[in-house]
Amino acid sequence: MSIKANDPSRQSWLPVSEDSDFPIQNIPFGVFLTRDDVITIGTRIGDTAIDLGAMHQLGYFRDIPLTDDIFLQDSLNDFISDGKKTWRLVRNRIAEVFDKRNPELQQQEEHRKTVLFSMDEIEMQLPVQIGDYTDFYSSKEHATNVGSMFRDPDNALLPNWLHIPVGYHGRSSTIVPSGTPVRRPNGQTLPQDSDQPVFGPSRRVDFELEMAFITTDANKMGEPIPVSEAEDYIFGLVLFNDWSARDIQKWEYVPLGPFLAKNFASSISPWIVTLDALEPFRTSSPPQQPEPLPYLRQSGKHSFDIALEVDLIPDGGTPATVSKSNFKYMYWTMAQQLAHHTVNGCKVNSGDMMGSGTISGPTPDSFGSMLELSWAGSKPLSLPGGISRVFLEDGDTVVMRGHCNKGGLRIGFGEVRTKLLPAPGLKHL
Amino acid sequence: MSIKANDPSRQSWLPVSEDSDFPIQNIPFGVFLTRDDVITIGTRIGDTAIDLGAMHQLGYFRDIPLTDDIFLQDSLNDFISDGKKTWRLVRNRIAEVFDKRNPELQQQEEHRKTVLFSMDEIEMQLPVQIGDYTDFYSSKEHATNVGSMFRDPDNALLPNWLHIPVGYHGRSSTIVPSGTPVRRPNGQTLPQDSDQPVFGPSRRVDFELEMAFITTDANKMGEPIPVSEAEDYIFGLVLFNDWSARDIQKWEYVPLGPFLAKNFASSISPWIVTLDALEPFRTSSPPQQPEPLPYLRQSGKHSFDIALEVDLIPDGGTPATVSKSNFKYMYWTMAQQLAHHTVNGCKVNSGDMMGSGTISGPTPDSFGSMLELSWAGSKPLSLPGGISRVFLEDGDTVVMRGHCNKGGLRIGFGEVRTKLLPAPGLKHL
Repeated sequence: MSIKANDPSRQSWLPVSEDSDFPIQNIPFGVFLTRDDVITIGTRIGDTAIDLGAMHQLGYFRDIPLTDDIFLQDSLNDFISDGKKTWRLVRNRIAEVFDKRNPELQQQEEHRKTVLFSMDEIEMQLPVQIGDYTDFYSSKEHATNVGSMFRDPDNALLPNWLHIPVGYHGRSSTIVPSGTPVRRPNGQTLPQDSDQPVFGPSRRVDFELEMAFITTDANKMGEPIPVSEAEDYIFGLVLFNDWSARDIQKWEYVPLGPFLAKNFASSISPWIVTLDALEPFRTSSPPQQPEPLPYLRQSGKHSFDIALEVDLIPDGGTPATVSKSNFKYMYWTMAQQLAHHTVNGCKVNSGDMMGSGTISGPTPDSFGSMLELSWAGSKPLSLPGGISRVFLEDGDTVVMRGHCNKGGLRIGFGEVRTKLLPAPGLKHL
Repeated sequence: MSIKANDPSRQSWLPVSEDSDFPIQNIPFGVFLTRDDVITIGTRIGDTAIDLGAMHQLGYFRDIPLTDDIFLQDSLNDFISDGKKTWRLVRNRIAEVFDKRNPELQQQEEHRKTVLFSMDEIEMQLPVQIGDYTDFYSSKEHATNVGSMFRDPDNALLPNWLHIPVGYHGRSSTIVPSGTPVRRPNGQTLPQDSDQPVFGPSRRVDFELEMAFITTDANKMGEPIPVSEAEDYIFGLVLFNDWSARDIQKWEYVPLGPFLAKNFASSISPWIVTLDALEPFRTSSPPQQPEPLPYLRQSGKHSFDIALEVDLIPDGGTPATVSKSNFKYMYWTMAQQLAHHTVNGCKVNSGDMMGSGTISGPTPDSFGSMLELSWAGSKPLSLPGGISRVFLEDGDTVVMRGHCNKGGLRIGFGEVRTKLLPAPGLKHL
């Protein structure tokens, strides 16, 4: 089935500004509360939110096999379960309905009133109910930076890193959408030159610039997904800020990995951009040497050229771009991550989320965390207005953005924007 | 509110054999498929399963504030959300209805036909939809054994272990109930004296003897649960076999913790025994030295005396009890685990599951894994019929049981029984 929705010549009858992340070729999926406090599944063109539940009730998807309530839900999980063929039919149909040359909804004023909302009158929600969330560690530059700082610069990568897309399980319950503030966590840390831990607010709160993909039901328990088929089970991607408390992490993570240093909050952008929409921006991932084991081998282009950037905004201050990176720097591809994750028979469900790990590039201005940007606190970052930072301070806002751009076509993710609030008081503790 | 259901003198009009885990003082909660293929929430007395959905429709819970469909569900999550007061009202009421002296249901033959099933005509399901699953590592003996084998016998415990109930996130999607067979996983391992990993079936599949507790909605994101209140948010416990592939684990787990070595399968017993039912068996946990930080401090009895055992049954062979342990050996209590888990504001939901970690006791016959019982494969276990084992072999069945016994009152968990099947073929890999 062709991806008609990707036709670069197509224009919408809805207004789309030149620098918009959401032209008619994007058609991301999300969940929002309408001005009438109704929750629905929707998409977006320019700054117009489109209620897919209302469109379906009005018959605009009548030729596609969908249950009546598929868009009248508070998560995309069931729609994602319907599979790639259905996602594509729906996305192609949306492109058709909002095409400038198509009068069917364009000229139905009553329908337009029910279906269309201005972005500023809706409230974006978490797009999926995330069952299980896994975070990988797939940027070679990031793993090398961390290894150099904390272990040995001459043997920065651990022996398994070039053979395994290393990953670990995270906590789903604290994944929140863009706009939800996050509190600095309290926790145990070990002061330098002491063997007695202390308790209090983390002093090393950090962001991690990541992207995450959302899966459909991919397999039965016990059945691996071959790397060659893995992309068919990926619905789309979001921007992902994997909040981290470095001092808590340092004390807790040996031998079972990060726990409270990560699970206090993780933030995602609310629109899932489909793999179909990213198709024109396919690119190669870095060469893999040594060659991975056969179950991880791929040829062809399995990464995407997605420019990423991070702004840091001190409370009441000026935004400063502190990192510019790119999704294509990832050493391990999403298909390799998913094939590895299931090679032991682990079951993957609709709505599961898999993070890339911090995406750092080759140059210091492309590092994806304050830990790397300030080299573990040893090199303060200078921000406008004489402000400097080694880690984040209360009131700081972190904004991550990402977009693709090729031959005049721009497809983007919007942003994930999060303000860091002070740690809660702990009278009872 | 008093726990009337714990009255040790109460007897049921349903038959209960002397060695049953399920006298009228237990009243565990579970989910089952009836002979008519209807899914319902139920309890169990002796070998009789009781359909709580049917009882509620017949009016037996009319004095308790419950929604009409609270028991007509495929998981206990909503009932658990109703909170401790409601659990206790329902459990007390069940004890009353099945009391020998109470004629109301006992003498309603038509009602009895709808409500009661023989255990062998129903099929137990997973009792909760597990949102997030965390596994702790809270047995000092187990952590010491592992540290002695793989690191340094003189410094077996890592520096953080006596200060932190160390834990990590696991995978919910592959938690299965007793009776579901599990496949040996394939995966990457590093052969001895090689720096090139190989791919194939794990050669060191192991069980881990654990228990796990199920929580209710405990907090808002950002709000810690004080250790003094933590037990109020624990619904009950199950037996838990945390399947592990030691060779995969060894190669993958540094630095982010176990991943594919654990997430291929985890098995639980299907009946959740409430903390209320375990009340008579409360006991002290081991003394904690050094004293933990204030947010983890407790006094009084916060553990439970639950005798645990593991049988290993080779295919067609004789069951052999390979381990006898006790839940009371746990160094960190469940309340400490939950207080620690949320001290950074991590949100805990109804139906979340938290495993204890392998529960090993002080003597070699109380070790809770083959890894420890065979001391990393160096001491084969002799089983009846001239069979020996270092790790598990295809066709082996592992059965874990647990019960409390005091003053003639026995409250038990039944069993979690799982057969290990051969690794799947991998033609496409």
